[in-house]
Parts: sequence; C-alpha cells; structure tokens
Amino acid sequence: MIITKQNLLDTHQRIKGYMHRTPVFTSRLINEILGAKIYFKCENFQKMGAFKMRGATNAILQLSKTEKEFGVATHSSGNFAQALALAAKLQGIKAYVVMPSNAPEIKKAAVRGYGGEIIECEPNLNARESTLNDVVNKTGAVFLHPYNDYHVIQGQGTAAMELIEDYTDLDSIFAPVGGGGLLAGTALAAHHFSPNTKVIAGEPMGADDAWQSFQKGEIIPQTNPITIADGLLTSLGDKTFPIIKEHVEDIVRVEEDEIVSAMRLIWERMKLVVEPSSAVALAALIKEKEKYQNKKIGIIISGGNVQLNKLPF
Amino acid sequence: MIITKQNLLDTHQRIKGYMHRTPVFTSRLINEILGAKIYFKCENFQKMGAFKMRGATNAILQLSKTEKEFGVATHSSGNFAQALALAAKLQGIKAYVVMPSNAPEIKKAAVRGYGGEIIECEPNLNARESTLNDVVNKTGAVFLHPYNDYHVIQGQGTAAMELIEDYTDLDSIFAPVGGGGLLAGTALAAHHFSPNTKVIAGEPMGADDAWQSFQKGEIIPQTNPITIADGLLTSLGDKTFPIIKEHVEDIVRVEEDEIVSAMRLIWERMKLVVEPSSAVALAALIKEKEKYQNKKIGIIISGGNVQLNKLPF
Repeated sequence: MIITKQNLLDTHQRIKGYMHRTPVFTSRLINEILGAKIYFKCENFQKMGAFKMRGATNAILQLSKTEKEFGVATHSSGNFAQALALAAKLQGIKAYVVMPSNAPEIKKAAVRGYGGEIIECEPNLNARESTLNDVVNKTGAVFLHPYNDYHVIQGQGTAAMELIEDYTDLDSIFAPVGGGGLLAGTALAAHHFSPNTKVIAGEPMGADDAWQSFQKGEIIPQTNPITIADGLLTSLGDKTFPIIKEHVEDIVRVEEDEIVSAMRLIWERMKLVVEPSSAVALAALIKEKEKYQNKKIGIIISGGNVQLNKLPF
Repeated sequence: MIITKQNLLDTHQRIKGYMHRTPVFTSRLINEILGAKIYFKCENFQKMGAFKMRGATNAILQLSKTEKEFGVATHSSGNFAQALALAAKLQGIKAYVVMPSNAPEIKKAAVRGYGGEIIECEPNLNARESTLNDVVNKTGAVFLHPYNDYHVIQGQGTAAMELIEDYTDLDSIFAPVGGGGLLAGTALAAHHFSPNTKVIAGEPMGADDAWQSFQKGEIIPQTNPITIADGLLTSLGDKTFPIIKEHVEDIVRVEEDEIVSAMRLIWERMKLVVEPSSAVALAALIKEKEKYQNKKIGIIISGGNVQLNKLPF
C-alpha cells in the first residue's frame, strides 16, 4: 500500500477532534549550544502522554461498526497499551491488552485507569502471542499492531504534519526509531508536505537493529536490546521498513550517556518531563551538530511517560 | 506606598519585552480529581525558570542611568540570584551576588552562567549582610531586595495580570508564600483587575511564619524552617506583609507529603518540571478541595529550577 498525501490529510481530519494539537517549544539556550534553530513538537503533552494516541485512534476509527462492537486487542507493556485503552474508551468500545505478568504495576494501573481490560501472560513473546490469539478467538476483538499497521503509521505521521504546518521551512526533522511507526509516519509527512525536509532517526547504540537494517537493506531483527530508551526495544516491521528505507535520510546511533545528557538538557533547560526515548532524537542531533549549523530543525518529542522513581540522574 | 492599577499596567508595559508571556496549562485529569477547572500559569517556563525574573527586571528598569552604571547587588542563594544576574545582563549592567560559601555549585554556576559576579561569604545571615554592605560600599552598586521592594512586588504581580487577562472570571488564585513578593503582587493584581477573585496562599507547615503572621496580624519571623520547598524559607517583609494582610483571603498550610504528592501529580500528569515550592499552591487547593467544587481556579506555578539528582520521588 502506498500512503498518499490525501490519506494523511484524511487521517488528520479524522482524528484531530480526539487529539491535542500539541505545542511546539523552543529553547534559546539549546539553540545557542547547537548553533541551530530547533522546534520541539511536544507529544509528551499528547493525551496519555505520547504520540501513540494518534495511531491508536486512527486505527480504531477505521474499523467497521460491527468490528467496533467486539472491541480491539493488542499486546504491549508500553505506551501503545495505554493509548489503545484510552482511544477505545473515547470511542466507547472495549480494549483487551495482553501484558506480561512482570510488567510494572504502574503501567497496569494506567491501562486499567483508561478502562482497558488486562490479560496477563508469561513474560515471553510466545506466551504474549498465544495469549493474544486466545483473546481474539474468544472475544472477536480486532488485533491492532502497535506500529506495523498502515493506519497506525498514518496516525503517527500527523504529529509531523502539524509541525510542518506550523514551521514551513524546516531543513530536517529528527525522530526516534523503535518499531518504526513514528519514523515512517514522520518520513511520509515530510515527503508529502515538505519535500525538502530530510528526516533523520536517532537510535540507541544498544538497540541498533534499525541502523543495521538500514545499512543492509533488509530487516535485521532486534536481539537482546540494552538501553534506557525503553520505547525503542522492538524490531522494524514489514510495513514500516520499506517506508523508512525509501524516505529516511539517515539513522544516527547514540550512546547511553548521550541519551541521558540530552534528556537532562530537556528537563533542566526546557522544564519538560520527557521519556528517554524522546531524548534519543536530540542526542542524535547533538552528535551530528556540525552538519546542522544555522539550520531549522524539528524534533519529535515522542512522549513523557517515565517512572519518577527510576530516573537516570 | 499604595500600588495602583496604573502602577501595575505601567510595570507590565515596562517589562514585557524582556519576559516570556508564559503559557497557561490545564489538565483534564487534575480537573476531574478536584472537581474544579484549574488554570496553571507556568512560570517554570519563564526566563531563567521562575517568576523572579519579572520583579528583578522591573526593579532594574526603575534605576536611573547613573545608578545603572554602578550595577546592582543582592544576597541570595536561590532563584533571585539568577534572576538578578540575567535581568542585569539583558540591560547591559553589572550584578554582584553575595552567596554563602556552601551554596550548591550548580547554583553558583547558574549565576555565573548568566554573567553575575559571585562574592562568597560565611553561611550565616550576619556574614551575608555585612558582605553585601562591603560590596555596595566598594562598588556603588544598588542593593535590590529579593522581595521586600515595591518594584519587585509589582513585577511579580504581572504573572497574575496575564493569567487574569487570559481567564477573566476566576473564582480564586492560589500562589505559594515565602517572603511574600509573589503573593503580594498576585493579590494586588486580583484586587485591581479582577476584584471578585480571591487570592489564597499555600505554605509549608514546616515554614509557616506567614500563616502565623496572618493569624496574629503582625510579622512573626521565620525560624528554623524545615521543608522541601526551598523557595519558601524566608520571613515576610514590612512591604509585603501589609499588602498580604489586606488583600489575601487565606493562607493554607500543607504537610511535606502533601507537597510531594502534588508535585508528583504535576510531573506525572502534566509532564512539567516544577519546583517543590510551586507544588505547595496545588497542595493547598487539594487540601481544601471541598470548598472549590465547580470553581474556576488559577494557580501560579512559580518555577522549575530543581536539582534533578535530589528529587523526592
């Protein structure tokens, strides 16, 4: 499937009533440090605290009336679980979320707080998939994938669409890459609405499957990722990767200390609570800053859901 | 001196070119928890991270040309030190800041980063005052008090003026109280621009000199304050207290755990980095929430300068 300009326009129209139009923040100090003009699209202020709300909502709104009656299901221990629960609630439908039994209580509580029904399973991928199958068979709910889904990708792209609408002549947009939903959506938004804007991904060195895939031209699955950026642990998908391969300019890998130091800069200087995954995009820009002197750069701050008792400072 | 409506209008006009017009944030979840509509005036996004920038700038702009040549001086280990340094720098004048030798290096670095000259002294009030006197005598700099100064009070009042301009029919505004500069300015702004809006202060139980003073009708000095809200350790002044006595509706004391829990709510749910002192105002509202059902409430988020390695979570 080719995602067209019209697809994205329709998507934005479809979901915008259920989303926040998140603000774009700037920091004179960070601009001075980097010698560039940086525009932070603050999806940490999005509903439930992350851009995932966009894709989840779009996917749900594409379901038929009958499908909606049976609800939706996913397996996730991260932001997509919460996003799907809240997006489903706002549409008055049921959400089933398969979560590993060892997921932090705070994340389970968040899903429950948004009205999602949690089904626990053993903490391994096989158990997650078989439990999800059981749930789908039993309830008739539609499985929605956290990122390897065209409707989800389109939804995630609306963050960059809004950024481009607000700032028309960006030289580049940086976004983090995990499964690639946000990155693919961002790349498509730039391609269709600001063709001169290059899209660059930041990725943790300890979870660099996207970089490897990008180099090799085929999907290299994620194995044993080690990074503080807990939103970026997944492999690319067969729907996200081709878009990334075609429309993304580069993937820049960053070390853990670079992630923490970019995160500290955002917290201390911009007074924003952002996830480590969000800081990966800024860390990538900092790493390559010589290339971006005097440029206008957008950064997608992907979310702000952190455990305050587990901060790296 | 009586601070008039025109004084405040002139002040806002005078300083606004040097300030951020800070945004007002809302949170549906916090509104639901409290059963009220709450408007957070986010001075954590103000230049140098706190409302103190307003008062410092106004005081400096009131100096004569000759006075400006000799610069300004203060003693402070907190936000006012940084505010004065930055405000002076923006006006191209010199700032001398007397700081106790045991002040955290990060705070000294911040003052230096804004171009202030630090003069260290023994960590006690006598040494601070005598060192300040020496500095003033030697340099001819004008001493500016962090809060007990009408120009400073007027400057701090502009945050509430902007909030009232944005939201015309607030039932109440909550602000934290330390030395009383922000509280007095807020109370005057409400008095002149929204007379039906009541102003309420939040104060830590472990530093409740303002509450005691308010009860007794005379200034009770602060002694041995114990609170995480490190911006609220000072006594009221003879300029701030009469305004507070006349125009403030109530002072609500809150426990340390109530401060931390309000702070956590703002960090987790609003994704804002705020100081413990800022959370005191929300904690006070939470404590008295029965009184404010279905009301429209403003809260002044005073600042966002925290040491990330010393968080209470």
